[in-house]
Amino acid sequence: MPSYTAPVKDMQFLLHDVLQVSASDVAGYADLDASFTSAVLEEAGKVASDVLAPLNASGDREGCHLENGVVRTPKGFKAAFEAMKQGGWTALDCDPEYGGQGLPYLMGTAVGEIFVSANMAFNMYQGLTHGAYSAIHTHGSPEQKAMYLPKMVSCDWTGTMNLTEPHCGTDLGLMRTRAEPQADGSYKITGTKIFISAGEHDLADNIIHLVLAKAPGGGEGTKGISLFIVPKFLVNDDGSLGNRNAVSVGNIEDKMGIHANATCVMNYDGATGWLLGDLHKGMRAMFTMMNEARLGVGLQGYAIAEAAYQNALGYAKDRLQGRDVTGVKNPSGPADPLIVHPDIRRALMDQKSFVEGARAFTFWAANMIDKSVRSGDEAAEGLVSLLIPVLKGFQTDRGFEMAVQAQQIWGGHGYIEDNGMSQFVRDARIAQIYEGANGVQALDLVGRKLAQDGGKHVMAFFDLIKTFIKENDSDAMKPFTEPLKKASKDVQAAAMFFMNNAMKTPNAALAGSYDFMLMMGHTCLGLMWAKIAKAALSAEGDADFLAAKLTTARYYMARQLPATALHLARIESGADPVMALPEEAF
Amino acid sequence: MPSYTAPVKDMQFLLHDVLQVSASDVAGYADLDASFTSAVLEEAGKVASDVLAPLNASGDREGCHLENGVVRTPKGFKAAFEAMKQGGWTALDCDPEYGGQGLPYLMGTAVGEIFVSANMAFNMYQGLTHGAYSAIHTHGSPEQKAMYLPKMVSCDWTGTMNLTEPHCGTDLGLMRTRAEPQADGSYKITGTKIFISAGEHDLADNIIHLVLAKAPGGGEGTKGISLFIVPKFLVNDDGSLGNRNAVSVGNIEDKMGIHANATCVMNYDGATGWLLGDLHKGMRAMFTMMNEARLGVGLQGYAIAEAAYQNALGYAKDRLQGRDVTGVKNPSGPADPLIVHPDIRRALMDQKSFVEGARAFTFWAANMIDKSVRSGDEAAEGLVSLLIPVLKGFQTDRGFEMAVQAQQIWGGHGYIEDNGMSQFVRDARIAQIYEGANGVQALDLVGRKLAQDGGKHVMAFFDLIKTFIKENDSDAMKPFTEPLKKASKDVQAAAMFFMNNAMKTPNAALAGSYDFMLMMGHTCLGLMWAKIAKAALSAEGDADFLAAKLTTARYYMARQLPATALHLARIESGADPVMALPEEAF
Repeated sequence: MPSYTAPVKDMQFLLHDVLQVSASDVAGYADLDASFTSAVLEEAGKVASDVLAPLNASGDREGCHLENGVVRTPKGFKAAFEAMKQGGWTALDCDPEYGGQGLPYLMGTAVGEIFVSANMAFNMYQGLTHGAYSAIHTHGSPEQKAMYLPKMVSCDWTGTMNLTEPHCGTDLGLMRTRAEPQADGSYKITGTKIFISAGEHDLADNIIHLVLAKAPGGGEGTKGISLFIVPKFLVNDDGSLGNRNAVSVGNIEDKMGIHANATCVMNYDGATGWLLGDLHKGMRAMFTMMNEARLGVGLQGYAIAEAAYQNALGYAKDRLQGRDVTGVKNPSGPADPLIVHPDIRRALMDQKSFVEGARAFTFWAANMIDKSVRSGDEAAEGLVSLLIPVLKGFQTDRGFEMAVQAQQIWGGHGYIEDNGMSQFVRDARIAQIYEGANGVQALDLVGRKLAQDGGKHVMAFFDLIKTFIKENDSDAMKPFTEPLKKASKDVQAAAMFFMNNAMKTPNAALAGSYDFMLMMGHTCLGLMWAKIAKAALSAEGDADFLAAKLTTARYYMARQLPATALHLARIESGADPVMALPEEAF
Repeated sequence: MPSYTAPVKDMQFLLHDVLQVSASDVAGYADLDASFTSAVLEEAGKVASDVLAPLNASGDREGCHLENGVVRTPKGFKAAFEAMKQGGWTALDCDPEYGGQGLPYLMGTAVGEIFVSANMAFNMYQGLTHGAYSAIHTHGSPEQKAMYLPKMVSCDWTGTMNLTEPHCGTDLGLMRTRAEPQADGSYKITGTKIFISAGEHDLADNIIHLVLAKAPGGGEGTKGISLFIVPKFLVNDDGSLGNRNAVSVGNIEDKMGIHANATCVMNYDGATGWLLGDLHKGMRAMFTMMNEARLGVGLQGYAIAEAAYQNALGYAKDRLQGRDVTGVKNPSGPADPLIVHPDIRRALMDQKSFVEGARAFTFWAANMIDKSVRSGDEAAEGLVSLLIPVLKGFQTDRGFEMAVQAQQIWGGHGYIEDNGMSQFVRDARIAQIYEGANGVQALDLVGRKLAQDGGKHVMAFFDLIKTFIKENDSDAMKPFTEPLKKASKDVQAAAMFFMNNAMKTPNAALAGSYDFMLMMGHTCLGLMWAKIAKAALSAEGDADFLAAKLTTARYYMARQLPATALHLARIESGADPVMALPEEAF
């Protein structure tokens, strides 16, 4: 069965040597000294290893069960959820006014990685609650906040997001769920929502559903959509639970992975709901949540890859098979460990350099979100808005591929469910799909974000890289800045190609959108590895640890970053190869 | 639930326009006129659509069950297996002397694709029997052939291959299963074998296990290994079944996919076996089977991708979501079908161009095997031996990726098991692992095949491409031959890099082996698309069909073949990035 150890040393290095958080002037960052963050991460690591990881495989095997309208989560989940609540983990980066601990989002992100690596399906129950918490926190009235937030911060009540319907996923304009206004200011919600993660379960006393629905007078398409709070149990004015609302689970899905998280069909049969935020502005309310939600899914991409990597590495060191061609390494044994073989190392280095680079990218983005939210830094906000689809799409694609590679190291044993490597692959797969399928992320990036605010944000991104390269013009940094410069040039050439062709042929940009997202992702990780190299060259401490960072950075530069040229070549082939075949000829 | 239609028109085009089989002087090919092959393929397609495909999802869901030493296959499998036998499908390319129909291997391959696409797990029962049949046919004594082959050709008895043990997969030198010679010329076989596909089941009266074991006096490592025939029921001289042999199933594995094929732990407790072929030459006997076995797995790679593609395409045409940015295509509907969106088309074109290219490569290789086996063509044999690891490794890797892409087109619905797209991904995954994990294919290619016979075969491969380009020096062919020339140059540069560095640094070649396998794969598919383009330019018939071939060829040239440059860049970065990190620093 797989094991998991939180990569605390790597995280500390990122926080303190690369991002230098405690020297930052972001509100709340001054408290993040190394001993504090180390204590938090170590403690989270213990919970992850001792409580969550042991339930990962058993939760996958048992899955969730629907019986008489009640969803039973796998054995052990209830106690583990209680432990998370008691430890205050659900409240970590929530508002102290509602019982939260008020830590920066960056710390919530680091702790989140640890929990996701240990048990992704379990962590979704609180992860979705956090998303619903944020929505109410941002858009709710004072009364709504007072009524719902304290219980959601503690996870006594959990939350959900209800967008998708059977006939509409990406295209929410097709939505059929209706909200009928009532005399008392509430609404009656009627419709069917699908793919509702944690829609029903036995971990909490109440479930607060946030539901997109069409209220009268809003017009066609997405314009008419509003967001509603629909609790499973109505809440009395004194905070006690009242009547059961007219919302029920119709079915739970049998999925490829994340079996331990109940994915529900939810039926709203005239359920009582209250408007959250402005009428007919539901999409806008959802969008303000989107950066955090997509960062959370991008995090899942590399967090699962980290867990898979740890177990691939353990196997590569233990399993004896074949001999090192340059000379026997384990003369007293019948064979050498797998890790002596160059192709096994290639796979391990692919995984390691991806996971560490993606972690840096994610922490850096979380840091930007803190700057934006806590310090009102508009440049940071613009950059995050540009890069979030990249982070989500690239990291979940590569994370899945790396989980597959980790499974591959186990050979035939990786295909056997008991060994747990298959679960990593099956679980990682969903992150490419939900919260906007990766093709939609690419569309968002190229179709919206590139040109947003006159292209200001992508120009800022190019400037950021240019400035970094200029400021780090040393011989020691050349092996990192030169490949980064090359990659950045490729991305700029692609953006130029879009600019020159998109007006005449919109499909010229859209046909290259996926490649653009991936080359942006590689370039972001290239930038991160250059930043890591810079920190490793100047930091003091464990020399072997710092040397390993430089070696891994060199690997990424040599073997991953050159992918930008391929993506550029594809983009520059234009729309024609993609669009030329008539539909009926497929 | 997924559906499947055999791509008979595409297959006919390959057989008659690209490979021009009936004009070939390979023994038996003269009979392969278009109406005959069409009749065979159409009929196979009917069996696939009507009998096998309907059992694919149900077989996955039900799986195999072990009860009291007996393995029960899923509902419907027994009747379907009977239908395959009655239709003569199991005997298609077997020796007429033993009841076979004597068709060329190429026809067996084409029919095999159809059956694998429809139901991979089911088809393995006869596929493995065919492998065991070939081993006995090649290495058996006349008595052994007479005793076993007729029943195996008819699939009244099925076969297995027993190589792997718990502690040894790739490194068979570590094998512990023993063979003790008996006075009557038989052997007592003792040991445990794992991952034995179809090791036990209820579809046949007897199961003929081929077992690798160490007999005394053979020396250390793989040298001491011999191959043995170990039937489940001993066979009397009159052909009737005798006593149960001391071989039993210990367990069946719970796997990620191919649930309907029983993967068994087999215990040999002094089971009676007979030597097949020469004593201590078991590895050599296995190797003669390997080309066909690996081609069969490489075929699974694209056959599953074909089935997944068909269902992704159907969904992309049916599912209404969003609007074409260049103008509404479905004004009477609430939205346009997915296929109008460039990124959906990109994914579909990736899949289509891979599947058709891989089919061409596989048919071409099967044709080479026929030339080698039926006409003693040594050049063909050398080329096949070089390219088989490419065909297996590249096609199963890309086939898996394409199944993932097909699943992605279904969005969230692709993650739901009921829709069947997940099964394609889970089933396709095994093909990258078994019959030599793909890293081992890369090692075989670079560590053995490149230098084999003084590098003769790889030189022949380069010559083949050069000659093709020279012979097709027309303006119409330039869009295909130019990219092929570029890719071929990249491969030659990589081979040159290995030659210049491998003597001094063996790891310089091994660290690049996987990339070399993939770039060879792309180049082979590039060659195939150039051949297809040539045929499409000169063939007569359905103009739309031929135009689609040219369009798809252009897509492969523009968007896939340029990958060779990336692989070359990685290879030329040498061993250092891959090997520099000390083991303890991982």
